[in-house]
Amino acid sequence: MTTYRASFYVGLKEGVLDPAGQATLQVLHQMGFSATEVRIGKWIQVMIDAEDVVRAQAIAEEMGHRILANPVMETFDVTVTPV
Amino acid sequence: MTTYRASFYVGLKEGVLDPAGQATLQVLHQMGFSATEVRIGKWIQVMIDAEDVVRAQAIAEEMGHRILANPVMETFDVTVTPV
Repeated sequence: MTTYRASFYVGLKEGVLDPAGQATLQVLHQMGFSATEVRIGKWIQVMIDAEDVVRAQAIAEEMGHRILANPVMETFDVTVTPV
Repeated sequence: MTTYRASFYVGLKEGVLDPAGQATLQVLHQMGFSATEVRIGKWIQVMIDAEDVVRAQAIAEEMGHRILANPVMETFDVTVTPV
């Protein structure tokens, strides 16, 4: 068994309103920054023990689909690397 | 001026408790997954207009230090790519 780090990048689907992102954009403007858009998502790191990287990737994808991302309003990417 | 996407990966410092991560780990176990650790951070994407990638990177680092990450308990990485 090897330990793998699965890094999930969970973001709101395009078209889904992001109030936290809009609030952050306003703060950036107030501080003098000229950003044009802010989108806030989650970066989730999960340590997984698996036989090999293919199996680790499969486990990670299942975690993402079933638990870590909300399929109604979020999408996710996941990358798996040995620790 | 070119538009750049700055991707921030904001995570809790090592040693800082992550209750949301611990709760997620418990749910993963209840669902039959054998993960050993979960850390939850933020993935923030900011669109920035700048003259070149060096300037865009400098702006992004300043945003991270001043606004997007809490220096007391968080660290961040940022990568900048032209859109």
